[in-house]
Amino acid sequence: MTSPMPQPPLIPDLAEQAPPGPLLLAFSGGLDSSLLLHLLVEAGLGPRLRVVHINHQLQANSADWAAHCEQIVAGLALPCRVVTVTVDKDKGIEAGARQARYQALFADAQRDAATVITAHHRDDQAETLLLRLLRGAGVQGLAAMRALDKRQGITVWRPLLELPRSALERCARELGLHWQEDPSNQDQSLRRNYLRHSILPALRQRWRGADEILARTARHMGDASELLDERAQEDAGACGVSAQRFPLAGLAALRPARQRNLLRWWLHGQGASAPSAAVLAELLALQDAAEDSQARVEWGSWAVRLFRRALYLLPREALAPWQGTLSWPQGAPPPSLPSWQLSPTAGEGAVSLMRPPGDLTLRPFTGGTRMLRNGMHQRIKELWRAAGVPPWQRHQWPLLYRGETLVSVPLVGLADGEEAASCEEWFLLPPPR
Amino acid sequence: MTSPMPQPPLIPDLAEQAPPGPLLLAFSGGLDSSLLLHLLVEAGLGPRLRVVHINHQLQANSADWAAHCEQIVAGLALPCRVVTVTVDKDKGIEAGARQARYQALFADAQRDAATVITAHHRDDQAETLLLRLLRGAGVQGLAAMRALDKRQGITVWRPLLELPRSALERCARELGLHWQEDPSNQDQSLRRNYLRHSILPALRQRWRGADEILARTARHMGDASELLDERAQEDAGACGVSAQRFPLAGLAALRPARQRNLLRWWLHGQGASAPSAAVLAELLALQDAAEDSQARVEWGSWAVRLFRRALYLLPREALAPWQGTLSWPQGAPPPSLPSWQLSPTAGEGAVSLMRPPGDLTLRPFTGGTRMLRNGMHQRIKELWRAAGVPPWQRHQWPLLYRGETLVSVPLVGLADGEEAASCEEWFLLPPPR
Repeated sequence: MTSPMPQPPLIPDLAEQAPPGPLLLAFSGGLDSSLLLHLLVEAGLGPRLRVVHINHQLQANSADWAAHCEQIVAGLALPCRVVTVTVDKDKGIEAGARQARYQALFADAQRDAATVITAHHRDDQAETLLLRLLRGAGVQGLAAMRALDKRQGITVWRPLLELPRSALERCARELGLHWQEDPSNQDQSLRRNYLRHSILPALRQRWRGADEILARTARHMGDASELLDERAQEDAGACGVSAQRFPLAGLAALRPARQRNLLRWWLHGQGASAPSAAVLAELLALQDAAEDSQARVEWGSWAVRLFRRALYLLPREALAPWQGTLSWPQGAPPPSLPSWQLSPTAGEGAVSLMRPPGDLTLRPFTGGTRMLRNGMHQRIKELWRAAGVPPWQRHQWPLLYRGETLVSVPLVGLADGEEAASCEEWFLLPPPR
Repeated sequence: MTSPMPQPPLIPDLAEQAPPGPLLLAFSGGLDSSLLLHLLVEAGLGPRLRVVHINHQLQANSADWAAHCEQIVAGLALPCRVVTVTVDKDKGIEAGARQARYQALFADAQRDAATVITAHHRDDQAETLLLRLLRGAGVQGLAAMRALDKRQGITVWRPLLELPRSALERCARELGLHWQEDPSNQDQSLRRNYLRHSILPALRQRWRGADEILARTARHMGDASELLDERAQEDAGACGVSAQRFPLAGLAALRPARQRNLLRWWLHGQGASAPSAAVLAELLALQDAAEDSQARVEWGSWAVRLFRRALYLLPREALAPWQGTLSWPQGAPPPSLPSWQLSPTAGEGAVSLMRPPGDLTLRPFTGGTRMLRNGMHQRIKELWRAAGVPPWQRHQWPLLYRGETLVSVPLVGLADGEEAASCEEWFLLPPPR
């Protein structure tokens, strides 16, 4: 027999669905989060719940509004924090506000591993999908938001994601709730609002159920994204791809679509912005480069360098050699470098650097630098080349000097006359991605 | 060194890119195909080229217009055919017109395995992607159109797919071409035109490069679709999935996203319409059904039946048993049945049916039907059940009678007294998908 399509109950069973542990609601004072606050309390989740209001300082009256939100939460006898953030408008107000908001939320949640709860609904999901589509996002981006997600180790729960905004408004009215519209919701200079007020209504007029269809597409993309990542991980294993290094040798065994998938996945995993199709093609064409080619491909603020038939990804700025001299007195913490950092403990991709006693200085490598080793003045360049150190890294690693004498070189070791037994072992850690 | 992004030449090198063999241009007389016709001739492809104009009979003056198109092509000394089609408006004018158009084009191309050439451009691609998105298409649908594609064994080439319409218009003006706007392009009751005139201009206003971004997304989806299909094929092999039958036993070893991918791929490959997320979940839940469950899940005009822990897909109408009696005189071709068809040659999923000599009739099976076999009146139902024939197929297969005597049963064989040596072997072929 055909089962009848179950009608979703308007409001999901929050008490049943809630992840265990502390809960942290992001509360703007607008319709969506006002309703969700009410429903969470109704569901008996109050004892586990605390509330954060983020003051983005984007409206003249935002401090008053924050105080008002605090009052509402206090009326429910729940703990409430107001976090005031400064939005970095360089990337656009929306992106900046979102980044500041999540940063503040996640920092708060991390204190006790709380689940972050947001009041996103189905209309938001449709907007997010279209926004990402128009930003040129791939399959992963088009998966948009998930009802249950994990970011930076923090669980994010969006219990209203399946519900249309109209249903939320109806429900809030029936409950006699009060809320206030965020005035920035009307500002059509913001792309999301432009979609919300100018594009989506025109789409809904012709495509009934547009939001539901887009939400379904997002879920479908979530599946696809999972499968593509799974395949990339398999292919990465077979090709010996690591976070640091992408060898090209095994690639030829894969069909072009799988090569592109693997490369996209690697770049994305390292935090690089998505390359255009042309850049992707250029990177894959490096398979045919000469054995000793050190070609470089750049896009946005990123660069890929070819070295010994493997790709290395780095921020473009990391290609610039560092200049100058830094002092490292005996007993002091090591100075801060522009890319690789000195640490007392090892980590992924770490390189050993022995620190002889005394007041030292850090200086950059130059092509002619030599060190007395086994009675010979050996060229650092040759030693590093033999060890497979990529050329641009040679200009990022510091050399240790006592006065004018080179006493220690990363990876290579100590100059003649220095004793390992009296040294501290330090580690150079690659720049974080 | 960074290679500078190569500027695409306005017009691709058609002579170089053209697939080998005969070429068949779909020519509407509008801007796009008028320009393409000109460019193909300019590229020296005339000797391999013929032109088809499809008259959809949707405008009052469409016959005049067809004659005008014929004249233009004759002026270039190229062969031109006008094919007049009748559009089935049941699925909507656009879908009906597209189906009729491609059917006519492909039928023409199949005569000499010609490559079909269409003048689709980047604006068309952006529209197609959005249309499919709003229709709830999955990854495969969002791949939209490909510059080089294969459908029903025919190559389709879209040489202008990367170029914006504005560039085509500029080029056509520079060349001093004449063309006429198809009046139906202005009809906003058609969804594509609504997108073209009401939605896309509003998007482009805020997202510069929207068309290029959407075209890139389509290519990206093409990659993803290829990878998802590849994975589904692997999983189908491991789980013993065939066109006829989808065993559920191996599914549990796959993660849910891969189960859904495999099931979607199987349904799509059999020509079924895409199921909703709820239907997909219902189908996968059949893994937990009782051993002897014969559950049925239906959506649109499709049904899936569970039988012996495997899924069978069939058009809903195929579930209805056939009624009546059909005669099959000696020497005559076999009568036509509502679903399975009698054929003198075997094929995938074919079932043998021995035809004894004489004038016979075909009658449907009923639960109580028996046949004299090995001296016993055996129940057909039991024989078929033992052979694993799914229940709904029992009502689709014909039984052969001579007068009132049952003489032959598909798969089972002949009644006592019939001689195999004097029979013809026929085959029941499953309904085409």
